[in-house]
Amino acid sequence: MPIGTQGSVKAVEQRELEGIDARIILANTYHLYLRPGLEVLEKAGGLHRFMGWRNAILADSGGYQVFSLSDLRSITEDGVTFHSHIDGSKHQFTPESVVNAGRIMGPDIMMVLDECLDYPADRERALFSVDMTSRWAERSREEFAKTAARYGHEQYLFGIVQGSVYGDLRERSAERLVELDFDGYAIGGLSVGEPLEEMYRMTDVVNAILPEGKPRYLMGVGTPENLLESVERGVDLFDCVLPTRNGRNGQAFSRNGRLTLRNAVYKTDFTPIDPECSCYACRNFTRAYIRHLIQAKEVLALQLVSLHNLTFYLWLMEETRKAIREGTFAAWKSETFARLGRRGNRDVNDSATAPTSTTGRRTTCTVQ
Amino acid sequence: MPIGTQGSVKAVEQRELEGIDARIILANTYHLYLRPGLEVLEKAGGLHRFMGWRNAILADSGGYQVFSLSDLRSITEDGVTFHSHIDGSKHQFTPESVVNAGRIMGPDIMMVLDECLDYPADRERALFSVDMTSRWAERSREEFAKTAARYGHEQYLFGIVQGSVYGDLRERSAERLVELDFDGYAIGGLSVGEPLEEMYRMTDVVNAILPEGKPRYLMGVGTPENLLESVERGVDLFDCVLPTRNGRNGQAFSRNGRLTLRNAVYKTDFTPIDPECSCYACRNFTRAYIRHLIQAKEVLALQLVSLHNLTFYLWLMEETRKAIREGTFAAWKSETFARLGRRGNRDVNDSATAPTSTTGRRTTCTVQ
Repeated sequence: MPIGTQGSVKAVEQRELEGIDARIILANTYHLYLRPGLEVLEKAGGLHRFMGWRNAILADSGGYQVFSLSDLRSITEDGVTFHSHIDGSKHQFTPESVVNAGRIMGPDIMMVLDECLDYPADRERALFSVDMTSRWAERSREEFAKTAARYGHEQYLFGIVQGSVYGDLRERSAERLVELDFDGYAIGGLSVGEPLEEMYRMTDVVNAILPEGKPRYLMGVGTPENLLESVERGVDLFDCVLPTRNGRNGQAFSRNGRLTLRNAVYKTDFTPIDPECSCYACRNFTRAYIRHLIQAKEVLALQLVSLHNLTFYLWLMEETRKAIREGTFAAWKSETFARLGRRGNRDVNDSATAPTSTTGRRTTCTVQ
Repeated sequence: MPIGTQGSVKAVEQRELEGIDARIILANTYHLYLRPGLEVLEKAGGLHRFMGWRNAILADSGGYQVFSLSDLRSITEDGVTFHSHIDGSKHQFTPESVVNAGRIMGPDIMMVLDECLDYPADRERALFSVDMTSRWAERSREEFAKTAARYGHEQYLFGIVQGSVYGDLRERSAERLVELDFDGYAIGGLSVGEPLEEMYRMTDVVNAILPEGKPRYLMGVGTPENLLESVERGVDLFDCVLPTRNGRNGQAFSRNGRLTLRNAVYKTDFTPIDPECSCYACRNFTRAYIRHLIQAKEVLALQLVSLHNLTFYLWLMEETRKAIREGTFAAWKSETFARLGRRGNRDVNDSATAPTSTTGRRTTCTVQ
């Protein structure tokens, strides 16, 4: 899912997203609740109409943002009280209020309110948090059952598994959520600084419990490598700022690795970012031109590289689906790693292969 | 002509410009000579190929930018020496070097190097400047005749009339340029702070001399009112940053006046910027959504309002051409002023008519 935090995928037009077959984007309840606010979204007839977006929207609950962006938050069994990062105003989110915000905003998929712990987290703290998140999930489920979608399309509610890097707490969380019978399940609280192998280990633990017939969503992940490794572990859905954020910084993904387009090596490189890519940027513009746009601080640089990177990510997932259908996923994955470098982070101009060890390194992608 | 100073019309894609039938854009020799530089543009096969633009380009000589942007310039009969506003490096432009830069960049129309005086300018200084600019024009004409277009398409050279606000100097300048027989003629050194009626008076003086069968280009102008008043005085071609610069500041033009989209009055206004406009922004998005994008500092705001404003300006000129062909220009002009407010600057939400006097006010549009 491309990230449309505030009701826009940064620097990319809605018709361009449709053009690259983006069928679902992520929006953020915390951000949209604060600005433009639920009153505006309600009068607009929901977020789809407000932002002119015909395909699907998943709205994150805002739990992660309350814990990462807002000041002076206080958490009780009831919910979380916080001060807006925009104007300092005081607000409360409860499991019920977040479901009701989802009814007003009208995303196709809404996430329950959860508590997202920092890494590392004390085991006792994590145990308490998991159980409270489960009680919040139950309250969310009840509120969801008592309320109705407003805009003539179905809405779905996903639970969020927590438990830090404690396997037994992850199991406890997943089991309780499965009992509550959500439409889909997210794996939250990862990609927050833990070693990569812990992320994969927790994903394995949780996916052994989550039902195969419902979508599994690994939140805030990740690099091309993270995606393929997680797909292999049974994950269906991802969101990540990397394609758009790196795009705005002039970093492009390609089938042969990463390009830092600001670099002087591209000054007279009149080839496309990725000769195999079918996006507007690659069909019409050269690395040299895009480097110039970056140097000259032209907005078009953000537009072109963001669009290209999203095209690359959607291509990666399309090819992944194809390989799964054809039963060739394992081979496709190794071949892709060989071309991209693991993590997709080998620079196209590096002669040596990038180091493959990621132990102890923080993944660079978190929910915006 | 939309402004593409550095080889990109800010926040608007080339395919979008084609989509709104922008047949010619302006680029700037001073900016492109400094960055990416002539070597890159030459290797790219010219500016059209570098920026992926199939329609026409007019390249301003850079004279105006040398005088407005660069530091420590010194002017001699030979040309002008200046320091780059980017890195302080020292450069010289001569009439010949600017023509040769035009041969390398390959715009369809190139402008001669001229001296653009500030307002007000002393008469003696202006007389000297006009004569030097005419001598530079002659040298440009000779260099142009001695050199050839490189990229398989014709190139045209326009002279630039100077003379500050002195009618006799403007006549002297225009007469000399007409003797030199350029492909078209620009009226430069206006829209630099002089009263608006002086601008129109000079335009009248010059257009009485310039041949009717060749294009007349009023540089750096202007508001919708400026355009229609100048068309009435015989001008054919304009360039102006207003649609894109105001677009980036969230100011939209419309058939009913100007909208400051940041204003709270648009918070729940779910109508398009201009209900009669056919642009992508007006067909798909509301004032409320665009206001939200501006508040949230989303890049999409720049994209949508810039695209809309360019669509508005091109519509204004298309309607103007139609009215001229049909012999109804005078009526069309009054009707349009009645709707737009003179200067096109009445806010849509003003109940009173905006003041029509512009005496002593600086026009807000100059070449970027």
